Amino acid sequence: MFSYNSKTKYFMKQEHNQYVEKLVEMVKDVRICMLITKEKNAENLSGRPMSINKIDDDGTMWFFTKASTYKVEEIETSKNVSIAIANESSQNYLMIHGTATLVNDKSKMKELWSSIMKAWFPLGLDDPDMTLIKVVPNEVEYWDSSSSKMVVLFNLLKAIVTGKEYAEGEHGKINM
Amino acid sequence: MFSYNSKTKYFMKQEHNQYVEKLVEMVKDVRICMLITKEKNAENLSGRPMSINKIDDDGTMWFFTKASTYKVEEIETSKNVSIAIANESSQNYLMIHGTATLVNDKSKMKELWSSIMKAWFPLGLDDPDMTLIKVVPNEVEYWDSSSSKMVVLFNLLKAIVTGKEYAEGEHGKINM
Repeated sequence: MFSYNSKTKYFMKQEHNQYVEKLVEMVKDVRICMLITKEKNAENLSGRPMSINKIDDDGTMWFFTKASTYKVEEIETSKNVSIAIANESSQNYLMIHGTATLVNDKSKMKELWSSIMKAWFPLGLDDPDMTLIKVVPNEVEYWDSSSSKMVVLFNLLKAIVTGKEYAEGEHGKINM
Repeated sequence: MFSYNSKTKYFMKQEHNQYVEKLVEMVKDVRICMLITKEKNAENLSGRPMSINKIDDDGTMWFFTKASTYKVEEIETSKNVSIAIANESSQNYLMIHGTATLVNDKSKMKELWSSIMKAWFPLGLDDPDMTLIKVVPNEVEYWDSSSSKMVVLFNLLKAIVTGKEYAEGEHGKINM
């Protein structure tokens, strides 16, 4: 029983790693996405273009932001965010649903900082109004141009809820 | 009293027209957007790239779709949709919130049809699985690059709810 479970988990992990690699591959050259949050009334969506500062090998995405913004308030109220990527030149179209956290870690900011950020933060890393948004993807859908369909790359929440393998999601959801 | 109201309404209409003109100007050369619907459980968002077939002078947007798709089911369940536009080359970033309707009008399809659509509908206008999605915008936010802020272009719902003029929304909501 235990060995079956750990074997299943092993394959899930292996498959998940492949999907995350594909996510990183699709996102790493994308400069701008739309970061979509829920307004504080939780009914309406709110979106704005954001520069993706970095995507880690495990799919975690990082954004710099001013702390005194509506989106930060919205993330404090509801941590569920979506990231829409529509890159016509590379033909990469993705919807990434994830969990956002505000990270006030100066050493992490230093690690992610580049001089381009000075346009936003002329005070540099000393800016007291600076914070990071960290988004950990739960579900990723992407446009598969060979099948002309939107397909689920992975869905961690469903795997957790249903106990089924992530691969079940592939081609599980097809649009147009 | 009546003359005051109608005068206010006249100015609201004039202002609204200017905003709709600006919307049409920003959208008319955009080819691809992300059409965002609510999944049938109403918790999760679902998005896919869609080609904007046409934007009318009054801001109404038209899309062709196969009727047998998840997004059509989702619109049948919840007519509130969002359209995310992130066009890096033109620097146009918009979030459009609107009301979607499924339109099964062959004469309208004929009016909007172009030969490019044959890639999606090889059967042409005779395809029984073809329908139109009509989106009437209620609220439009766009990225104002001169102020580096997301601003409300217009919000019909708030004007209706609060009775305030649409212009109140301008610069009313600022992100990053």
